[in-house]
Amino acid sequence: MKKNMLSRRLLFKGAALAGAAIAAGTLSTPVLAQTARKVVDLTHAYDQHFPTFDGKPGIEFEWAAEIAKDGYQLHKLTIFEHTGTHIDAPLHFSADGASVDQLEPQKLVAPLVIIDITDRAKEDANTALEAADIERWISTNGEIPASALVALRSGWAAKVTTPAFRNDDAGKFAFPGFGKSATDLLQTLDTVAIGVDTLSLDPGNSADFAVHNSWLPAGRYGIEGLNNLEALPVKGATIIVGAPTHRGGTGGPARVLALV
Amino acid sequence: MKKNMLSRRLLFKGAALAGAAIAAGTLSTPVLAQTARKVVDLTHAYDQHFPTFDGKPGIEFEWAAEIAKDGYQLHKLTIFEHTGTHIDAPLHFSADGASVDQLEPQKLVAPLVIIDITDRAKEDANTALEAADIERWISTNGEIPASALVALRSGWAAKVTTPAFRNDDAGKFAFPGFGKSATDLLQTLDTVAIGVDTLSLDPGNSADFAVHNSWLPAGRYGIEGLNNLEALPVKGATIIVGAPTHRGGTGGPARVLALV
Ligand SMILES: [Zn+2]
Ligand SMILES: [Zn+2]
Repeated sequence: MKKNMLSRRLLFKGAALAGAAIAAGTLSTPVLAQTARKVVDLTHAYDQHFPTFDGKPGIEFEWAAEIAKDGYQLHKLTIFEHTGTHIDAPLHFSADGASVDQLEPQKLVAPLVIIDITDRAKEDANTALEAADIERWISTNGEIPASALVALRSGWAAKVTTPAFRNDDAGKFAFPGFGKSATDLLQTLDTVAIGVDTLSLDPGNSADFAVHNSWLPAGRYGIEGLNNLEALPVKGATIIVGAPTHRGGTGGPARVLALV
Repeated sequence: MKKNMLSRRLLFKGAALAGAAIAAGTLSTPVLAQTARKVVDLTHAYDQHFPTFDGKPGIEFEWAAEIAKDGYQLHKLTIFEHTGTHIDAPLHFSADGASVDQLEPQKLVAPLVIIDITDRAKEDANTALEAADIERWISTNGEIPASALVALRSGWAAKVTTPAFRNDDAGKFAFPGFGKSATDLLQTLDTVAIGVDTLSLDPGNSADFAVHNSWLPAGRYGIEGLNNLEALPVKGATIIVGAPTHRGGTGGPARVLALV
């Protein structure tokens, strides 16, 4: 009788899960676009005013065909690869690393881990996400998923139209980034990429670009200038990285979306 | 008693579905990259040799930083928007249409419908996908899903490194495309976009660009130069369109992936 009750209780739990099963079934990838599954755009729109590391315009526009004359229109663009929301491919910091078109497609679809250091960044613009932050995330949320992309959320995306995205009041670089202790830890996992909502993988006050110089040559990639991370849970979303495919590129503007 | 049996049967069904619930749970988007879920790259890598409509190089590369001198490297790119696997935004063929950065993110994740006219294209390079082809697809596969992206598969992607991608032996444009009867039919549905594995939405022998001139001004978008459609089922895949976000663009190179 007791056993029977247990069995009934399990069956009841089964019935409850069955509801979930039907919902999960209708939510499988083929119908993502037809359901309430959320698409979050992690990309900034950008133009010649978008902040760049070297301070020069990252893109310029020129008309190459005009609708009044040609019946259609198109631009000739001049683009410096590392502008807008963009990829850093291994080739950006290594003479023989993978170029952006060589990133394996299966590394462009990844479980998204978000580590939020927004509060600390308010006190210290150059704060770094260190190994201890990853360990803290793990103790709260469980292991970093296999083949994850780990993104730093600092609140910096909201500053993108202001000088504070790049500089402090004295005009010096000032923004959060990854510390090498964090990326060294992630290199012991199969984490495919790191991402930041700032101008650079390394913090603004970095003297040696330690993360660029170790993470990228190790064959992993990065994303700079992510947007809208605050619209996502710290785990459970899938990031889809629309890296460009110009041959031999060291990186380039990317369309980055998340599904949740 | 009968009622009880029914109830037990439902509970049993519930228990069976509960197994499905757990399986579906592990296959939900957060773990796509960690499972056997397939990512298919629908994008060509491209460089200055990639075929373009006007026959001129669609991209040029110049070094803007060099690793020996600067410790890192990056390119200055000159890109004509409509090169490689790329988006045609409404603005490409209308003075006031949506630019590529204005496409709604939820229209970039869509159920993918593939209509295969490869056999006919072998006989007639300029064959058009017409309304009758869509009706035939529907009679075999069921309705076009809501908010779908409908792609023409002609086998042309395999020709991309040869002159036959663009021209016939006489040097005239020759490639398959959409006929206006097809896109007129799709305009009665909420189809978000069309895609082709050729150089243009309209067939090579088009005199009036009827599809460009009607589909794009109607506020829908297109993708030209899709790759690898033969690796996907004709229905059931989800396409994720990594459209670029340069502000005011009429289109541009895109990373296009499919999940299946
Ligand atoms: Zn960088
Ligand atoms: Zn076009």
